[in-house]
Amino acid sequence: MKIDILTLFPEMFSLFNESIIGRAKEKGLFDINPVNIRDFSKDKHRKVDDYPYGGGSGLVMSVQPIRDALKEIKKANGGPVIFLGPKGKTFDQNTARRLAKEDQLIFLCGHYEGIDERLYEDIDEEISLGDFILTGGEMAAIPIIDSILRLREGVLGRDESSVEESFSENLLEYPQYTRPEVYEGEKVPEILLSGHHENIRQWRRYQMLMTTKEKRPDLYAKHQLSKDDLKILKKFFKDQEK
Amino acid sequence: MKIDILTLFPEMFSLFNESIIGRAKEKGLFDINPVNIRDFSKDKHRKVDDYPYGGGSGLVMSVQPIRDALKEIKKANGGPVIFLGPKGKTFDQNTARRLAKEDQLIFLCGHYEGIDERLYEDIDEEISLGDFILTGGEMAAIPIIDSILRLREGVLGRDESSVEESFSENLLEYPQYTRPEVYEGEKVPEILLSGHHENIRQWRRYQMLMTTKEKRPDLYAKHQLSKDDLKILKKFFKDQEK
Repeated sequence: MKIDILTLFPEMFSLFNESIIGRAKEKGLFDINPVNIRDFSKDKHRKVDDYPYGGGSGLVMSVQPIRDALKEIKKANGGPVIFLGPKGKTFDQNTARRLAKEDQLIFLCGHYEGIDERLYEDIDEEISLGDFILTGGEMAAIPIIDSILRLREGVLGRDESSVEESFSENLLEYPQYTRPEVYEGEKVPEILLSGHHENIRQWRRYQMLMTTKEKRPDLYAKHQLSKDDLKILKKFFKDQEK
Repeated sequence: MKIDILTLFPEMFSLFNESIIGRAKEKGLFDINPVNIRDFSKDKHRKVDDYPYGGGSGLVMSVQPIRDALKEIKKANGGPVIFLGPKGKTFDQNTARRLAKEDQLIFLCGHYEGIDERLYEDIDEEISLGDFILTGGEMAAIPIIDSILRLREGVLGRDESSVEESFSENLLEYPQYTRPEVYEGEKVPEILLSGHHENIRQWRRYQMLMTTKEKRPDLYAKHQLSKDDLKILKKFFKDQEK
């Protein structure tokens, strides 16, 4: 996967040299190329922004450097141009899955009071990270790229990918426990030490359903209860009545 | 503001040396201190995770290193412990405003298949960045810390803070244009060059209302139309009928 990122702060993306993603990068599974928008400015002071027409505070990013940078990048990257901006559709796992299928992506990070509206012609899609304000598009590009890359084949080890399943069912994960069995007086639930696989599976499923219902009723409403789910709920409710 | 971050990848947070946030850091407006969880492991191989009880793929972060790191940090930081995790409430601008009022914050970044459930006792609040999966909590901590810091006094210049206002009204920003007036044949809307402040204000307000209605009907539903809004909508609808 080839990712070009138009940004004023290319150094920020060095964090993709760390962690699981960094290991996948070393293996050559993808290539991240931050491109400094400023390098394309035809202004003698390398200016990339200017005051807005019609007045108002703040600076607006100009058409010329971004459009020229995109022209250059598009020579070697045929992927969609994604602008990280507040007017976009809110990013979610479905969008991550869709973009993970592309082999090339171009991200544009805005700053200040936004970009000149005429640049929307150069953009294929606007994506927002959520309903909050950031200092710049880089802060959205970073988690978005991370969530896309982890879906690419070979990036995660087999041991790291099970979270995906529960999420695609609109359920939160069950509680996890690791060694030691007792820590400062607190014990791991008996059932997890029982070795009884079917009981453990049912207990975990029950926890997933209950946690989601309590903490994310909006997700729970989207989850389709299976026959097995109903059986498990019935069983655990009965147990509680005893 | 004092921010401690428990993480396995402290180097990632060097991106806060860049951009507007980096300038505010140089001015001493806040202090970000990434703490390596691994440094607190009592295991001879500095292990911080182990296999889950009850079976299943993946590794779970152990209680000991995180609990001990928190004990140490809490000696000098009395702020709430915020865990970046998928079961938390989705982060939004209201949460950013609330946390920006604190003078001390502690963030805990999880990895792998999550943290040992017993650690929830050590956590004051769980926050999720959104409905998508990340390789680690760092990827959520970065934009969340950015959106909190930009609300602190002195971090943004006066020119950079107007976006906040439209957002607190549940409206998206109006389109912005900057020089030149014509770029590759595309013109800036006449009205913005008119110098007529009241007309410009009304046009921009109309754009905010229409853009929000079109792109984010969920936000628009939350916006309270003012008397002025109604007057502007009426005026522009009339103009369109002509």
